[in-house]
Amino acid sequence: MTNLTEMGKAARLAAFELSQLSTAEKNQALQIIAEQLEEQQQRILAENQKDIEQAKLNGINEAIIDRLLLTPERLKGIANDVRHVISLADPVSEIIDGRTLDSGLKLERLRVPVGVIGTIYEARPNVTIDVASLCLKTGNAVILRGGKETQHSNKILVDVVQTALAKAGLPKAAVQAITDPDRNLVMEFLKLDRYIDMIIPRGGAGLHELCKQHSTIPVIVGGIGVCHTFVEQSADQNRAISVIVNAKTQRPSTCNTLETLLVQESIADSFLPKLAAQLPVKYFADSTALAILQRANACVEPVTEDALRKEWLCTNLNVLVVKDIQAAVEHIREYGTQHSEAILTENQGLARQFVAQVDAASVYVNASTRFTDGGQFGLGAEVAVSTQKLHARGPMGLEALTTYKWVGTGDYTVRA
Amino acid sequence: MTNLTEMGKAARLAAFELSQLSTAEKNQALQIIAEQLEEQQQRILAENQKDIEQAKLNGINEAIIDRLLLTPERLKGIANDVRHVISLADPVSEIIDGRTLDSGLKLERLRVPVGVIGTIYEARPNVTIDVASLCLKTGNAVILRGGKETQHSNKILVDVVQTALAKAGLPKAAVQAITDPDRNLVMEFLKLDRYIDMIIPRGGAGLHELCKQHSTIPVIVGGIGVCHTFVEQSADQNRAISVIVNAKTQRPSTCNTLETLLVQESIADSFLPKLAAQLPVKYFADSTALAILQRANACVEPVTEDALRKEWLCTNLNVLVVKDIQAAVEHIREYGTQHSEAILTENQGLARQFVAQVDAASVYVNASTRFTDGGQFGLGAEVAVSTQKLHARGPMGLEALTTYKWVGTGDYTVRA
Repeated sequence: MTNLTEMGKAARLAAFELSQLSTAEKNQALQIIAEQLEEQQQRILAENQKDIEQAKLNGINEAIIDRLLLTPERLKGIANDVRHVISLADPVSEIIDGRTLDSGLKLERLRVPVGVIGTIYEARPNVTIDVASLCLKTGNAVILRGGKETQHSNKILVDVVQTALAKAGLPKAAVQAITDPDRNLVMEFLKLDRYIDMIIPRGGAGLHELCKQHSTIPVIVGGIGVCHTFVEQSADQNRAISVIVNAKTQRPSTCNTLETLLVQESIADSFLPKLAAQLPVKYFADSTALAILQRANACVEPVTEDALRKEWLCTNLNVLVVKDIQAAVEHIREYGTQHSEAILTENQGLARQFVAQVDAASVYVNASTRFTDGGQFGLGAEVAVSTQKLHARGPMGLEALTTYKWVGTGDYTVRA
Repeated sequence: MTNLTEMGKAARLAAFELSQLSTAEKNQALQIIAEQLEEQQQRILAENQKDIEQAKLNGINEAIIDRLLLTPERLKGIANDVRHVISLADPVSEIIDGRTLDSGLKLERLRVPVGVIGTIYEARPNVTIDVASLCLKTGNAVILRGGKETQHSNKILVDVVQTALAKAGLPKAAVQAITDPDRNLVMEFLKLDRYIDMIIPRGGAGLHELCKQHSTIPVIVGGIGVCHTFVEQSADQNRAISVIVNAKTQRPSTCNTLETLLVQESIADSFLPKLAAQLPVKYFADSTALAILQRANACVEPVTEDALRKEWLCTNLNVLVVKDIQAAVEHIREYGTQHSEAILTENQGLARQFVAQVDAASVYVNASTRFTDGGQFGLGAEVAVSTQKLHARGPMGLEALTTYKWVGTGDYTVRA
C-alpha cells in the first residue's frame, strides 16, 4: 500500500541531504543515471512494452501510444538529455545580492534548493527522467505521479534511477514515484503541504485546474496557451504572413502555437485573401472575416465562443476582424491564457502600447509566439511554462527550482 | 449585499489602468491620500470611536482595544507613512535582464505589477492604509478584508482613500474593502482566482492555515516565528548573552523574537546561571536545563511539547540542552517555522554548517533574530514576512508586489 506520508517524510530527509551536495557530486549521480538507463535498456523496454500492450487493449489512439513508446533510440535520447543537464550551470549557492547594514551585520541572499517538488504528469515516460534530473541538478527531492498508462515504464525508470542514486551514495528517496493508479492518491498528494514545497503539473487544462482547486501546496499553473497575434494596419503584410505561418504551423501541437489571429478592420479585405493563399488551413471566422475568406475560397466556418477559448493544438486557426489595437487588447484580456501574445506592426508607439497593455508571460513585437520556450530563451532547460504570476512566469529554467535564504553574519550584533 | 465577483471584475479593470501609470502619477495619488487622511481626521476618528465602543461592549481586552484605537497623532503617523511610501523607489518598469537570441530576437524581462492583491488581516486599522499605499505604489489593485472589530474604521478609511483616488483621476476600485463581517465571504474571497492573483494574510497561525487550506489563489504564508538560537560551546558567553537578551526582549510581541534557546551540553553548567542572572524571565526548560536553572534560583518550569511549538510573543523563553550542532539542527528542523534561526559560535566551520543545514528564511551567525525585518534589511517597506519558499522568502519589500513579463522584439522574426 502506498503511504504518502512516509514518502513525504523520506523525501524531506533526502532533500536535506541533497541540499548539502556540491555540483560535482550531483553531476556524478546524473552521470550514473545516464549510464544505467543505457545498461538497463532491455528491462526498461520490456516494462514499457507492457504499457504499450495495455494501451492497445484499451483502444488508446495511435498518437498517444506513440508518445508512450520507448525505443532503443528514444532511450538513448533520454540518457543524452540527462548528460545535457550535467552540462548546465548549477544555480545553487549563488550569492544573489548582499549589503552591510548600519549595525555592521553583513547580509546576503543565498540561492538554495526549494526542497521537495511534487509533479503530476500525463502519458510520456521521458518526463519521468527529465523532471528527476532537473530536480537532482538543483538539489531538490522529487515525488513523481505519472499517468496510469505509463505505470510500468515509470516504475522501472524510477527503479533504475534509485539504483543509480544508491551507487552514487545518495538517498533513494531523492526520486520517488507514486505508481499506484488509485486516483484518491492524487488528492492526498495535493494536501501534503507539510512535506512538499511546490507542485508542478504537466498536462492539460483539466489537470492544472484540479491542482489549483485542491492543492494546499503552491502550484505552478501553466502550459495552456490560447495565443493571439494582432496584425495592426501598418504591418508589412507579406512579412506578417511569414510570422503567422511560423506561429501556426511550425509545431501545431505546442502550447505556444498561435490559435487566434486578430486582424485590423482597415486591412482585412487586402490581408485575409493573401493569408488564405499562403496558409491553406481550416479557418474559424467571425462574420466579417468569414465573408472575406469565403470570397477567397478558403476552408472556413463560423467561429464559436467555445473555439475562442480552446487550444486547437492542430492547424485550425480562429480569425477575427477587430477595429483597432484597443479592441485587440480587450479581446486578449478576455480570451487569452496569459501565455504568449504578439503584435505585428511598423508603428513603434502602438508596439509599446501593446507590450504595456497586454498582461501575459511573453509579449512579442514582430515575432512568432513560438519563441516561448526555455531552450529558445537560453535557459538551458525547461521545467515548465508558467502562466501564473508568482515565483516564475513563462519558461522556467533551473533557477525556478530554487529559492533563497537570507544569511546575516555579525559579531554578536544586536538590533538597536 | 456584497458582490465579490463584481468587486473582483472592477479590481481587475482598475489593475489594468494602474499598471499603465507613471511613478509620478502614482505618487500624486499617494500625496492626495495623505492629505485626505489629515483633512478627514474628524470623520475618521468618529467612526473609529464606534469600533472602540463596540469592542468595550464585547469585553475585548485593553491591549487589543489599544491596537484598534486611532488618535490624531496616530492618524498623522499613518499619513506620514504614506508620504514615506512616496519616497521609495518604484520597481515597476525596471528591466531585470535581457539578451539577443541567435535568431535576432531581442528578449528582455520587464518588471510589472502583479495585478490584483487580496489581503486578510486582523485588528489594526493602520494596516488598511499601509497595504493600500504599498499596492498603489506598485500599480496593483487591492481588495482588503479587515477584522470585524475594525469595520467602521476600515469603511471610512477606504472611503477616504477612494475619494482621494477620484481626485487623482484614478479608479476607485483600485482600493476596495469587504466590510460585511459575514465569515462566508472569506471563503468566497479565497476562491476568486479568476480575478485575484495573490493573497497576503496578515495575522495569526490560524488565519494563515485557513488561507492555505481553502484558497485557490496563491497565498503568501508567513509571519509565524518560532525562532531558535543555538549557543555552541566556543561562543563568547558574555557576548552571547547580550544577543539573547536582545533577541528575547527588544520587542517580545514580534514574530522574529527568540522563543527557544538551544545550549550545547558541554557549556550548560557554566552558561545557564550567567544567562538567568542577566535575563530574569520565565523559563520553560528540559530536565537538564531545569536542574541547572533551579540551582541558579531562576523562575523555571518544565517545558512541554506544546510550548516548543508556540510563539510566546512575551518574555517567556524555552531552554533545551542539546548534545551538539547536529542535535540543534535536528530540533530546528522539527520545531522551527522557517522564519529566523541563529547560531552563536567562534567556530567558522560550524557557522558555515549551520547556515547550510538550517532551512529558514533568515539564518544568522552571531546576531540577533530581531534583524528579520523589511526596514532593517533596507527594503524600505515591509509588505509581510514570508516563511514559504516561492515568489518571496523572508521580509517582502515592494519588489514582492511585482512579477515580470518577457518582452521579445523582432523584425518579423520566426523560429527556425
